[in-house]
Amino acid sequence: MSEALTSFQEYLKKMNYYRRVISLLDWDMYTQTPRKGYEGMADAFSYFSTEYFTLATSRELEDLLDKLSRQEEFDQLSPVMSYTVRTMKRDMERDKRIPKDFFTALVDAQSASRQAWQDAKQAADFSLFAPHLEKMIEMTAKKCAYTDPGREVYEVLLDQYEEGMDSATIDRIFEELKEGLLPLVSQILAAPQPDSDRFRGPHNCNAQKEVQDLLLRYIGFSHDAGVTGESEHPFTMGFSNGDVRITNHFREDDAISAMFSAIHEGGHAIFEQNVSPDCQGTPAEDCCYMGIHESQSRFYENILGRNKNFWIPVYPKIQKLLPAFQDITLEDFYQEINHVQNSFIRTDADEVTYCLHIILRYEIEKAIFRDHVPVSGLPALWNQKMQEYLHITPSNDAEGILQDMHWSAGDFGYFPSYLLGSIYDGMFLNALEEELGSVDKLLANGEILSITRWLKENIHQYGSLRLPKEVIASVCHKELSAKPLLDYFRKKYTEVYHL
Amino acid sequence: MSEALTSFQEYLKKMNYYRRVISLLDWDMYTQTPRKGYEGMADAFSYFSTEYFTLATSRELEDLLDKLSRQEEFDQLSPVMSYTVRTMKRDMERDKRIPKDFFTALVDAQSASRQAWQDAKQAADFSLFAPHLEKMIEMTAKKCAYTDPGREVYEVLLDQYEEGMDSATIDRIFEELKEGLLPLVSQILAAPQPDSDRFRGPHNCNAQKEVQDLLLRYIGFSHDAGVTGESEHPFTMGFSNGDVRITNHFREDDAISAMFSAIHEGGHAIFEQNVSPDCQGTPAEDCCYMGIHESQSRFYENILGRNKNFWIPVYPKIQKLLPAFQDITLEDFYQEINHVQNSFIRTDADEVTYCLHIILRYEIEKAIFRDHVPVSGLPALWNQKMQEYLHITPSNDAEGILQDMHWSAGDFGYFPSYLLGSIYDGMFLNALEEELGSVDKLLANGEILSITRWLKENIHQYGSLRLPKEVIASVCHKELSAKPLLDYFRKKYTEVYHL
Repeated sequence: MSEALTSFQEYLKKMNYYRRVISLLDWDMYTQTPRKGYEGMADAFSYFSTEYFTLATSRELEDLLDKLSRQEEFDQLSPVMSYTVRTMKRDMERDKRIPKDFFTALVDAQSASRQAWQDAKQAADFSLFAPHLEKMIEMTAKKCAYTDPGREVYEVLLDQYEEGMDSATIDRIFEELKEGLLPLVSQILAAPQPDSDRFRGPHNCNAQKEVQDLLLRYIGFSHDAGVTGESEHPFTMGFSNGDVRITNHFREDDAISAMFSAIHEGGHAIFEQNVSPDCQGTPAEDCCYMGIHESQSRFYENILGRNKNFWIPVYPKIQKLLPAFQDITLEDFYQEINHVQNSFIRTDADEVTYCLHIILRYEIEKAIFRDHVPVSGLPALWNQKMQEYLHITPSNDAEGILQDMHWSAGDFGYFPSYLLGSIYDGMFLNALEEELGSVDKLLANGEILSITRWLKENIHQYGSLRLPKEVIASVCHKELSAKPLLDYFRKKYTEVYHL
Repeated sequence: MSEALTSFQEYLKKMNYYRRVISLLDWDMYTQTPRKGYEGMADAFSYFSTEYFTLATSRELEDLLDKLSRQEEFDQLSPVMSYTVRTMKRDMERDKRIPKDFFTALVDAQSASRQAWQDAKQAADFSLFAPHLEKMIEMTAKKCAYTDPGREVYEVLLDQYEEGMDSATIDRIFEELKEGLLPLVSQILAAPQPDSDRFRGPHNCNAQKEVQDLLLRYIGFSHDAGVTGESEHPFTMGFSNGDVRITNHFREDDAISAMFSAIHEGGHAIFEQNVSPDCQGTPAEDCCYMGIHESQSRFYENILGRNKNFWIPVYPKIQKLLPAFQDITLEDFYQEINHVQNSFIRTDADEVTYCLHIILRYEIEKAIFRDHVPVSGLPALWNQKMQEYLHITPSNDAEGILQDMHWSAGDFGYFPSYLLGSIYDGMFLNALEEELGSVDKLLANGEILSITRWLKENIHQYGSLRLPKEVIASVCHKELSAKPLLDYFRKKYTEVYHL
């Protein structure tokens, strides 16, 4: 091994130690830090984030990357190392243009903004959050101007979460989807609806945790390489492929929500647990393409989890753990988990109207960064689009524009990933069935782990090594299109709602 | 503020960030890291521990401490800052003599030794642990030779956990206690004993967690400034007075053990939560004198928790949460929690024979470091002393010399702290009753929080600012003696066992 490569790998190790404690502080703040201990954790988070930034933009790292990028060195590198050197060099060239003071100010502003968003949401008062949102928009634009001078801000943001995906492509497929969905939703809503009241429990929260463990094991999550925690909003956080963590939120009146959060986050976690060990300790070890990442969580949650056959092997066990389900047949349960309705909250939405929730956010993000709509005008824009796509108007901003935390942390451009994930899923489903045969049959036979293996083989193991476009091309051998997803919706809901 | 003081405080902040992530890694490894993620956490722990050591022994810190130690600067310092400068200067002078390579090797050896101890305990096979124990003894002696050249190793170790306490004093009071206890225990064991089988449950573990929360709130633990977790062995870990964490271990067949662990760790935690905010961010903020620390946990656990009146306000609530206690009267419960018996496991021992478990360990530690008894001879020595003091012989080393983790991490000299804590408690009890009147009455009237307030006022708020001897002098105005503890035992057990 060359001297430069040895030094680089040592340097990478050190960066990983910092990343690890930053993640651990974050994990702790979300899952367990007591109220009075929060500030101390947040200060440490800010300190180590800045230290990490210094490491990631140091002259020393730049030199190492330069050396390893020379043709004769680069040609010797393993595929994982060449990916690592290439992407780190690109990121360093962008990031080193960010002044360190600005970076620290951004971390601190994010922290204050997240806090303000929480307060504003609790009080259902957008005015408490508005100045922070303004600041996040301004600082995000400024950050993009540093990293990608001359490029349009929103394109930079999209690229950051789904490399190679531009707004022209997204516009095209989202339009295609919107045109197909709006009439389908109208048709569904005109049909008779199931009675949701029967599902309100109460369901013991400890029993729900047992259901979660059962579902996670069922879909292929390894408890040796992951743990579960609790937080206000469910999320997944990976430390390595040997330690991937998910959280959930349990409520006595809604066991179904926690089940589907478990399956969704479990899907993210299985992805990270399944990344090849070769990628460990490098940027390839977790998937940095959020559309691809979401495609896996949503594949488990929707394509598999909202399929009736998924439940055949496990529903009786769930009925034992949650006695309130004993009087509910699998058929009725299936109807409820596919109950389409126009609702306010994205995370509670069914898989069909969910798409419209994302399209709305995507259009508002474009309005912010492209049309420069002022922050004061955003709640009205939100409500107008809710009316247009879902025919309902939030009674306050907590169930409207304040519902999601993403913008409070400056995560603009992330939302489209969710829907891209579903669009990819339509295509993956076709590819999977071509190879393994009917998903219905596999699930009904209790062979869900053969699906997990297929996903590992075709998608998970590569981590970040393949770009989203490359994943689609190699798995589906087709151009990106929303048609498979639309076809899946039409076929499924014609049957569910007897259309 | 002088320039040196400003720089020093900045430096202290940085050291605290490192201490925080080291503790957080430790907390995580004990409470939740999944099996396959352990190595990654341990590597980061070792990295940041070494970085911290570098910070704590740097030329920069030495210069700052030198500057602040000059008379004209030192006289300007607040009491907390002068304590901080004085102790850090002393520690730095010791620690800087430790070679960095040796320090890293020690951290790694501790990690390997803890792992080996776990395996050995599980297999009940001392030979698996023996080479690691030898190494820990050798490295501990070597470390003391670096930090305190020329001083006797075991005196250095005692001083490290209970500053100002020497083996001559400990010998004197432990002898006093042993002479008083051996006949008392014989007398108790000759009396009729309660029936422990009635308490075996099963007790639902989630209900036990509710009991824990109830007990913690009852004794004054703040859930705003602390959280609870689970681990194989209960422990307390403080991040700041706004974030003090305790763990417990729940077993269906023994609810009493978890209750008393909760009260014990709760006592440690209340101490740290109650340290004055002035001490925050300095070495004074947690109490570094383990005898004083244990005196507080043991005061709650034994002096209060094993008093019948403690339970009057809460026992009915516990009976509701744990139905197996519904048929057990408070009187029977009281007998059981004061059931004296010769047993193998220290942490399960009653408060009386517990003292003998500690005296045994203290004598073995002296045999190791003073008489250089070889590691191969220690299991026999252990068993011989068990027979001498408790008249029983362990059937294997897991319930003998392998039971405690302390030595596996090189924590020699810690054990005496537990018993010193109880001896202090005898004295504190007298002082408290002189000021507040009968503890029995306070507890029976549900005024336990007035006791917590007294402890805060007289002990907790000072953190590490006062040496153990100073605490005793200012709270008790008396010389250290085991007599008050012996008097407490004699009076209490004459009544419990109708002697």
